Amino acid sequence: MSFFAKSNDSGIVLTSRIRFARNIDGMPFPQALSDSASRKVIDDVYSALLKSSINEVKNLKLFNLKDMDKLNMMAMAERHVISRDLIENFQRAAVILDDDEKISIMLNEEDHIRLQVMYKGLMLKEAFEDANRIDDAIEENITYAFDAKFGYLTSCPTNVGTGMRASVMLHLPALTYTKNINNILNTVSQVGMTIRGLYGEGSNALGNIYQVSNQVTLGLSEEEIINSLIAVTKKIVDQEEKARELMAQKRSIALEDDVYRSLGLLKFARTLDTNECLNLISKVRLGVEMGIIKEVDIKKLNELITLIQPATLQLVDKRELESKDRDVVRAKIVRESLK
Amino acid sequence: MSFFAKSNDSGIVLTSRIRFARNIDGMPFPQALSDSASRKVIDDVYSALLKSSINEVKNLKLFNLKDMDKLNMMAMAERHVISRDLIENFQRAAVILDDDEKISIMLNEEDHIRLQVMYKGLMLKEAFEDANRIDDAIEENITYAFDAKFGYLTSCPTNVGTGMRASVMLHLPALTYTKNINNILNTVSQVGMTIRGLYGEGSNALGNIYQVSNQVTLGLSEEEIINSLIAVTKKIVDQEEKARELMAQKRSIALEDDVYRSLGLLKFARTLDTNECLNLISKVRLGVEMGIIKEVDIKKLNELITLIQPATLQLVDKRELESKDRDVVRAKIVRESLK
Repeated sequence: MSFFAKSNDSGIVLTSRIRFARNIDGMPFPQALSDSASRKVIDDVYSALLKSSINEVKNLKLFNLKDMDKLNMMAMAERHVISRDLIENFQRAAVILDDDEKISIMLNEEDHIRLQVMYKGLMLKEAFEDANRIDDAIEENITYAFDAKFGYLTSCPTNVGTGMRASVMLHLPALTYTKNINNILNTVSQVGMTIRGLYGEGSNALGNIYQVSNQVTLGLSEEEIINSLIAVTKKIVDQEEKARELMAQKRSIALEDDVYRSLGLLKFARTLDTNECLNLISKVRLGVEMGIIKEVDIKKLNELITLIQPATLQLVDKRELESKDRDVVRAKIVRESLK
Repeated sequence: MSFFAKSNDSGIVLTSRIRFARNIDGMPFPQALSDSASRKVIDDVYSALLKSSINEVKNLKLFNLKDMDKLNMMAMAERHVISRDLIENFQRAAVILDDDEKISIMLNEEDHIRLQVMYKGLMLKEAFEDANRIDDAIEENITYAFDAKFGYLTSCPTNVGTGMRASVMLHLPALTYTKNINNILNTVSQVGMTIRGLYGEGSNALGNIYQVSNQVTLGLSEEEIINSLIAVTKKIVDQEEKARELMAQKRSIALEDDVYRSLGLLKFARTLDTNECLNLISKVRLGVEMGIIKEVDIKKLNELITLIQPATLQLVDKRELESKDRDVVRAKIVRESLK
């Protein structure tokens, strides 16, 4: 269920994602598509996968968003499996998934095809290879809109060129607490990368979780983009580790107190809003990673980041809830998970 | 060890205390006594008890403060067994105690004799009867300074008359949180009583613990004073219970959250100062008494109120500590107690 549950690694780099934006040649972009043409996009892409010579894509399943309930859709967005934009266009949109949601192919989002591969840990190359194979599988039976000069043509010019967005999700509590995160922001933008919060553009860095992704899609090869993101990520990880070491040296009792108090609140609070909850999880996660807290499984914490999201927790609780009631259910889910 | 450990009752009224101030006829008050005369006061009172016809006072033990270490003295003050004033005069002062510290006879404090009986719960009459018997035992062999008009003569005129101070220690979190404590303060002073913090005059109501005692010692009989204090106490208890009911009705989740978060912090914090610690204990105690928290033994909480005091915790830890280190030891003592 959780988007963190795909490998054994769980450090500063939570996940790696590769996303390709593709459009079908000779078809208007989704926002200009008729209902029937939207339907045709979905059918053509799905049958292209089923007809493909590559076996691994034949087990993918198609979900039309109009057949799903809203909570389920929102929960998928919380797991980063689909985007909120796809939900906006739910009457004409679909998504093709594998069982563990590592592969997600959104249809009729901003582009006809948004192909995503997500891994836990720093696995950009692996994700890129997977995405490439699936991309090839689709292309066996579909002609992409492609220009020799501009590369893949996309609905929004920021995606033109490779059509690729490579991103990593990073947990940077020490850089945040020591206020060094601003230096990171500068460094990142200087190398053509952008840094954002847990849920993309405009979202705050809830729980000290940041997304770093390539800004530029044109004029660089996929390999160059990925290598550059890997290099930046390793630099940030290095900085975060140094900040943690400094914190541990400078104020070890205060730090120990802080992370354990956070654990105490998570284990005992009866009402928790998303923001507070993510910040507490962040501190406990820091404590576990620094070897201060030994009794908590970091996998549980990673799962909780998704489980406590509004839609996901309503699914867990099997009912729609007002915000106040969600805070109560959230506290209960956290308590039970950390028992 | 703990001054709360003497009966099974443990509610809003933590303890009841009766204290008699007495002076020996024909002797200057302690502040004007020579070393040898101070010694004589101690010897005379102790031997009066040993010679007495009343058996229960023959097991009392004498401790000269000059033979005790400072931490031990401070810890006794934290248990309310002796006063801080007695410690000030430690070179000439002594205390006579029974094994469980229910009876405490301070010698050469402000008066030659300060006889105290302390009970858990609302037990003023019982404490008064005990104090009376011990007072009679002393008087078999000692002549008190007594005036037909002014009653027992005391060093400070506020104690003249009965020489009696009757007091109760109350835990009033709900009245404090709902800000109704100010009404109580007024009511109490209107009936000749005074209300103070955990450690007497000038001390704040740390941990929402208040001491109510009679202001007036002259012109009223002991019985009248005690009956009046019992009546006031019952009224305050009634008000506290009503305030708790209202809190439970008005904001039950917020209350539950508050008391459980306090428990979480007590169980997990790595550093706790006295003030925060007492306030957290107060909230958890409220939660237990209101039936919200079921997994904590209220006796442990009552014990903690004393155990976390600076001198007592240094005794537990068997070493002298700086304030910062005390906070760490305090958190450890609390964690282990609540395990």
